[in-house]
Amino acid sequence: MSTTTTESNITAPTLFLDASGERYAYRRFGGGPGHPLLFLQHFTGTLDNWDPAVTDPLAATREVILFDNAGIGRSSGEVPKTIAGMAKHALTFLDGLGLKACDVLGYSLGGMVALQMAQDRPSTFRRIILVGTAPRGGEDIMHLEKPSLARHFRDPALRGYAILRKIFFAPTESSQAAGEAFVGRLAQRQNDLDRPSGPDVAANQITAFREWERFTGDRFADLRSIRHPALVVNGVRDEMIPVSNSYRLVENLPNAVLLVYPDAGHGSLFQFHDSFVSQAAAFLASGQETGPGTSQ
Amino acid sequence: MSTTTTESNITAPTLFLDASGERYAYRRFGGGPGHPLLFLQHFTGTLDNWDPAVTDPLAATREVILFDNAGIGRSSGEVPKTIAGMAKHALTFLDGLGLKACDVLGYSLGGMVALQMAQDRPSTFRRIILVGTAPRGGEDIMHLEKPSLARHFRDPALRGYAILRKIFFAPTESSQAAGEAFVGRLAQRQNDLDRPSGPDVAANQITAFREWERFTGDRFADLRSIRHPALVVNGVRDEMIPVSNSYRLVENLPNAVLLVYPDAGHGSLFQFHDSFVSQAAAFLASGQETGPGTSQ
Repeated sequence: MSTTTTESNITAPTLFLDASGERYAYRRFGGGPGHPLLFLQHFTGTLDNWDPAVTDPLAATREVILFDNAGIGRSSGEVPKTIAGMAKHALTFLDGLGLKACDVLGYSLGGMVALQMAQDRPSTFRRIILVGTAPRGGEDIMHLEKPSLARHFRDPALRGYAILRKIFFAPTESSQAAGEAFVGRLAQRQNDLDRPSGPDVAANQITAFREWERFTGDRFADLRSIRHPALVVNGVRDEMIPVSNSYRLVENLPNAVLLVYPDAGHGSLFQFHDSFVSQAAAFLASGQETGPGTSQ
Repeated sequence: MSTTTTESNITAPTLFLDASGERYAYRRFGGGPGHPLLFLQHFTGTLDNWDPAVTDPLAATREVILFDNAGIGRSSGEVPKTIAGMAKHALTFLDGLGLKACDVLGYSLGGMVALQMAQDRPSTFRRIILVGTAPRGGEDIMHLEKPSLARHFRDPALRGYAILRKIFFAPTESSQAAGEAFVGRLAQRQNDLDRPSGPDVAANQITAFREWERFTGDRFADLRSIRHPALVVNGVRDEMIPVSNSYRLVENLPNAVLLVYPDAGHGSLFQFHDSFVSQAAAFLASGQETGPGTSQ
């Protein structure tokens, strides 16, 4: 096992895996009786964007594996312009690790990649956690040009992590305070940092979002084949990927529980990290392995 | 304290309280460190319709109080034709008990009564659990005449509790099996039973549903004043009060968490009773007493 002795994303060393001609950056730490949990990251996010308040308590009872997809952070290659391309890299990475099955926490863009992986190779995942994400054919996915988001991207005062407080949290005192705490937790990691994503990363990922919004035929029908136990989580005030997308996920995935937090935006898992970790751990530890019965 | 020594709705004696010219039937059992929890019942339901798999584990750490509103079971009086009328009776009952503040679990019709009570006298409740219910102005509330429900009401083979399996559970093998288990649990109580509700009860309650669907002015605005911590629960396949009503609740209540179960209809709390009890108990035990901040 390549498990490291450190148990926090503040200090876990970045590791590298060579597979199919690419070099993937990742971190792997923690351990315990739970199945390994793969973390798939949001738009432009790197290994350094994972909140230790989420990764570390989950790592207390299982290995967690944080992953830079191709072209992100210190991973080689081009950022794919489709979710399918990102799913392919993630499967190559898991194959390279020799991990036959794991749990997954897909956040935002990462949730879409997790859904695509579950369709492409269902045996990859045991249980699926989807936070702040959308199915193919979802609505209003990452339209950074809309006024409620564009005003933050245009604000020169918002540099580095500071913009995350505005776009991941609701415009209330309580949510903004949670956002400030979140940014503070990210800043705790001082060494062995990823290269922040530039405009080229953003452009390709936005192209992938636009492609993911398109659908043909029966909208959301592809979700019905994903019979894994799933936990879908969102903030009710998510401006980046509205909560309606989470509604459509649980209405069409055959075995998905929905959890929606109040007073929270896209970063609900960081704002309510204690509750989220507790819900996620209980979900991952649950013995129920099978989906519900078929319609009569 | 009038707490009884039995800890189950299978055996708890029915009690009676005289207040403001009415006699209210109720059961009160259990105990522990938690706040008392008032149960407000569904359409035509009596004290005997509360699932011991839900009431009894909750009674292990708090008193639970099951209540027959006016004209239901062995309570005197007329069944009100408005939710507001039902809320008035429930407040009179709590006043008669001398209970200044409690938690509440309002299910279906009972959830609407809980919402009305929270508006009429906010201090009544500390925390609010709303299952399978709808806000004023909600959509498709208890339209028993629609084909998906009417076919069960027309079926002469469905007598007594048997119809509940059809209308409270989803048309899947797994959900129907859970429905059968639920009906079996209700049937465990053999003595000291309430009088089942007749067509007059149903007619007045349906009148109240039709009135509750109406709204004037800003739809759902009345919810924004209900700042209690709330847990909203539903089955994703609820035909009696569709899950969209739960979406509207958490989008407008300032401090409400949403939990939606897969493969479940109106009776999600009975189908997933272990999970529901665990979620409800954790919610009720949480220390957070205040709502989120105001918008900036």
